This record gives sequence, structure tokens and C-alpha cells, in this order.
Amino acid sequence: MSEKRQIINRKGAISPFFVGVDLGGTNVRVGVVDDLGQSLSWLSIPTESERGPEDATARMGQAVRDAIAQAGLSHADIARVGLGSPGTMDIAAGRLVAPVNLRGWDDFPIRDRLEHHCGLKASFFNDAGAAAYGEYWIGSGRALHSMVFLTLGTGVGCGIIIGDLSISGENSHGAECGHMIINDRDDARLCGCGQRGHLEAYASATAVIKRTQEALDAGRESSLAARIANGAGLSPKLVAEEAEKGDRLSLEIIDQTARYLGVGITSLMHTIDPEGVLLGGAMTFGGKKTELGRRFLAQIKEEINRRAFPVLAERIKLDFASLGGDAGYIGAAGIARLEHRLSGTP
Amino acid sequence: MSEKRQIINRKGAISPFFVGVDLGGTNVRVGVVDDLGQSLSWLSIPTESERGPEDATARMGQAVRDAIAQAGLSHADIARVGLGSPGTMDIAAGRLVAPVNLRGWDDFPIRDRLEHHCGLKASFFNDAGAAAYGEYWIGSGRALHSMVFLTLGTGVGCGIIIGDLSISGENSHGAECGHMIINDRDDARLCGCGQRGHLEAYASATAVIKRTQEALDAGRESSLAARIANGAGLSPKLVAEEAEKGDRLSLEIIDQTARYLGVGITSLMHTIDPEGVLLGGAMTFGGKKTELGRRFLAQIKEEINRRAFPVLAERIKLDFASLGGDAGYIGAAGIARLEHRLSGTP
Repeated sequence: MSEKRQIINRKGAISPFFVGVDLGGTNVRVGVVDDLGQSLSWLSIPTESERGPEDATARMGQAVRDAIAQAGLSHADIARVGLGSPGTMDIAAGRLVAPVNLRGWDDFPIRDRLEHHCGLKASFFNDAGAAAYGEYWIGSGRALHSMVFLTLGTGVGCGIIIGDLSISGENSHGAECGHMIINDRDDARLCGCGQRGHLEAYASATAVIKRTQEALDAGRESSLAARIANGAGLSPKLVAEEAEKGDRLSLEIIDQTARYLGVGITSLMHTIDPEGVLLGGAMTFGGKKTELGRRFLAQIKEEINRRAFPVLAERIKLDFASLGGDAGYIGAAGIARLEHRLSGTP
Repeated sequence: MSEKRQIINRKGAISPFFVGVDLGGTNVRVGVVDDLGQSLSWLSIPTESERGPEDATARMGQAVRDAIAQAGLSHADIARVGLGSPGTMDIAAGRLVAPVNLRGWDDFPIRDRLEHHCGLKASFFNDAGAAAYGEYWIGSGRALHSMVFLTLGTGVGCGIIIGDLSISGENSHGAECGHMIINDRDDARLCGCGQRGHLEAYASATAVIKRTQEALDAGRESSLAARIANGAGLSPKLVAEEAEKGDRLSLEIIDQTARYLGVGITSLMHTIDPEGVLLGGAMTFGGKKTELGRRFLAQIKEEINRRAFPVLAERIKLDFASLGGDAGYIGAAGIARLEHRLSGTP
């Protein structure tokens, strides 16, 4: 929860410069990037949402100034600020509507208040869409023409890039792909949102814990049982650790998660036919650096091969995201850059 | 299969003019529209696909000339031709790849050959995307900012409009929403494409016939049985006729079809959050003119209300399409108009 800072020395940074703000329920990450998306500095402050949106936005404004100073730049060097925020929201109006992870922040005009507190013009987008744009701009998606970015964590977040833009949807609910229905039956799993059969109800970290617990309760043998008896909390990380030691149930849970994701991704491929699909978030099982992560990706691909039109299955570029926790502020800065260019301001 | 022609006299038609060509497996409809999408004339010729793509494209070129003459215009009045075609295709390359309903037309450079045969620059798109664009331009979608168009027939076709464009997808497979997976289980229904659990396997005319036949085979009582015994073929139209007379099974089949569509539409709402969803094609049960059509739409809406995020369910504009069989050529002409404007040609 303490502040973190990092200054990146870059020779040849290209103006204009932009500040990206990635607002989360726990922390706010603020970074300065140049016209190519290269980070010059970033810092992180606690959100402390209980102090209310006006207080937090004032501290975000100060963090923007601090990040600019850290980067060795001045206020006049910055063309625009971009803010990525959790929903629900009204993107066009620049307002939060009823953000689930920011209690008491309902109906707050956050874009205008941030502009007031940092003295810079601000762009506003949802957090997952901003992160998708970051990956598209300079991350794993930089060679892609269109893409879907799925973030696997407590929920399944999503951003979609078509025609160089992160789609926002008519009601600022674009790309809530975690809530695609993959099972329409009445006995389908219950999602955190209260509805049944959603991808998130099968393939999120929450779902992994639930499905594992059910298997253990049903008497499945697993080395997880001893870990839990010794005080370990059941989590995707614990499942991954036991899977790496060869625990069969743990491997099955991860493989099945991959298959559910393959179902959802196939539907997305048949709906918008993106060039690539990227996976990020806390639950990627180590990503491409670990055998387990590579197995996870291969199992998703196998399900896509089994289900999607052959030409699409053959061509889809499936990969892990590469920017980690930086995708949000970089993407928010990238959206600010787009709006700056479209606005024609010199 | 005979030629059909219609000349629409319009005072005050606005130049430039465009010709739209809607290529189907059975017929080709060719029409002239003005800059506002108003039709000046159309005609229909048999595709006679067995004569091969070069022969058919030559006849399409002649039909373009005939339609222009019918409209009282000359070749020089036409800015561009638009062609909507069944897939699979490569839109950017202007080629058919392996069109299911045009056997023997594989890998044919149809855009360039049509340009050759009619002496006009041509734009090329898939048929469902073109029809969606037609409805968006001047049909039921004319007041919408973004939309999904579902065509209910032998299959479930789809076009998606975001940012004023009909999305084509990275591999020209954009908007194959009939092949979204609504049931991921191994015993899910088999789709015409060979995969399981797709929306089309539940909600197309083919699926309605299959589901009805299964119910009859299972001994369900229905006035359909007598109709079939008297020689009527089982079809959505027959089911609709008996439903209108109060046959319980027929009503159930139609209601259940609506519920499956509600599932698929909810996933689309949670994926791209369009302002509206339009339904067209042969299987709309009379559309808004009949009680059965209105019931069908209401049942779809009820399923959306049950499943979608409340704010989206409340705001979604669900309606029938209004252009019928004209949507394809009008939309193809509209896409030609867009490309003409983007090309900057005077």
C-alpha cells in the first residue's frame, strides 16, 4: 500500500508526452509516456477509496504532477492525461455511474474533477479497454491489426480493439466478454454478477477456487488437501504449485479452465474475427516463462482447434500479454494520445 | 427464377448514384440507389451458378447496365458498384474463397471480374454485412449508432455495425454470430457447420424443423401431425400456422426459439454493447404485422431481461428489420458509397 516510484531514463524520448492514470480499487498507478508509448516514469499511490472520490481525485492530480516532475518534464510538456477506471461508467459524459470496487463513488464526474486537479485536459475510458489498448499499442499486440485482451483474475475482464480503437459500447459496457453465456441451461454455474452460465463463472480465479473446492468436497484425492489442512488458502496459485508437482486434480482444474476459455474465445472469433487474442491478469499460471503457463496456452489452443472454423483456428494469434501491471496506465496514455491527435490541438 | 424488374420514379433523387449487387445462391438482385439510399430501380436475375462464375459475373455486369438504363441514368452517372456475396471470401483481395452456396466458384477474383464486365469500380463485402449496412443506412437501424443484424433463415446470419462500418473481421469472418457457442456441453446440438452448441443449431429454421420433428417423434400431441399426414412439409411456416391456431407444441417451439435467440443476443450485448439489435430473414413469424411475430419479439426481449445487465436490457432497441430482400443490394450500394467517399474520387 506504500507509494512506489520508478524513473526510467530514456534518451531520445519523443514529444508530445502523455500521462496515464490507472485507477484500481486498491492502488492508482500513474505514469508518463512519450509519443511512442515509452515510459519515462511511474508511481503508485493507494486509492484509499473510503476517503471519497474528491479526495482521491485531488491526490491523483498531485500524483500526475509528481510523475511529470520525476520524468524531468514540466506541465507544459504534457499534451493530455488519460484515465482508465473500473465501471460502471458513462464514458462520453466522463462520469462514474456505480463502480463496484469504489463504494460511495457513484455518479461522480471524475474526468472533469481530474482535469481540475491536474490542470490538464483528460480522456476517460474503462480500465480493461485501456489495458487492451496498451497491449495493442506497445505490448504483445503491437503487430496486431485487431485483437481481444482477456484479463484473468477475480473476474474475467476484456477489451476489444477494432479499427485502431478500443470499443466502448453504446452504454459504456463494450467488451464485458466475461459475461458471455457459454452454458444456457438452468443448472449452469452462477456468476458473480448474479446471472448463470457466464464465461467468468467457469474461468475466473473465483471459479477455479470454487470448482476445486467442489472436487475436494466430493472426495477427489489431491495433494491440495494436505496443503489446505496445513493452513494454505485455496487459490489459483496453490493449484498451480500442486499442478507443477504433478497433482492430477490440480492439472485437471487448470486444463478444464483452459477449455472453458477456448469456448469463450471461439465465440469471440466467430463474432468479431480478431487477428489475435491476448491473455493477461493474475491467473496466467506463469505465462510463457513456465511449463505450466505454456501448457495452459496450448490447452486453450487445442479447444479452439476443436471448436473454431479451421481457417480461423489456424490463423489466430494466441499469446500472453507482455506489459503486466503497466498496460493500464500506458493504454490510458495511448487513448489520451489518440484523442489529442483527433482534437487537432497543436 | 424468372427475371423481375421494378422501376421506382423518384423526383429529387440526389447524385452521385450507386449500384448494389446482392449475389445469392439462387438469384442476383441488382439495384440503383441515390446518395440518400433511395432506390431508383431494381431487377433480379437467376444466378445459375452451375454455368460457372465467369458466365454469371458477365450476366451480372449486363444486369448492372440494365438497372442503370431502367433508372433512366447513364453509365457516367454511377460512382461505384457494390457487391455483397456469400462467403467464404477474402474481402481485401476481392476474391471468393470457398462459397458454400456457389459450388465450383472457389478462389474466383469476383470483384475484379465484375469491374471488368460492368466497366465500373466495385466494392466487395459479405452478404450479411451488406444487408446489415442497408438496414443501418436507411432501414430499421437508421436512427441507431451501432447495431447487430441477425437474419433468421436456413442458418443464422449476422452483420455488426460499429463506428459507422460493417465489421469484416481479420479473415473476412466477422460477424458469424450464428456460430457463437451457447451450450458448451458434449451433448449440445450439432450445427450445420459440423460443430456443436452453436446458436444456429438451436435458433435457425433448420433447428426449428429438427426440434419440432423430435417432439413429434417423442409422441407430443400437436395439430402438426395431421397437417404432415395430409402431405404438408414440416417448416417454420407450418409451425407458425398451427401456432396461430393455438397448437401448444408449435407455440412452445417458437417461444423456445425466441429464448435461444435471447441467450445469443445477451452474449452479443455483453460483448459489443450495440445500441440496437434487428431481426430479419425468412423466419420472423410475420414480424411486427402479426400477433405471432410480436409475441416472438416479446419472448426474445423477456429472455434478454432475464439474462442481460439490467441497464443494457432496459436500453437495448430490439426490432424487426424493414427492408426485406432489398437490404442486401441497398447495403452493398451503401458500402460502395462509403468507399467512394473515402477514396476521394470526385
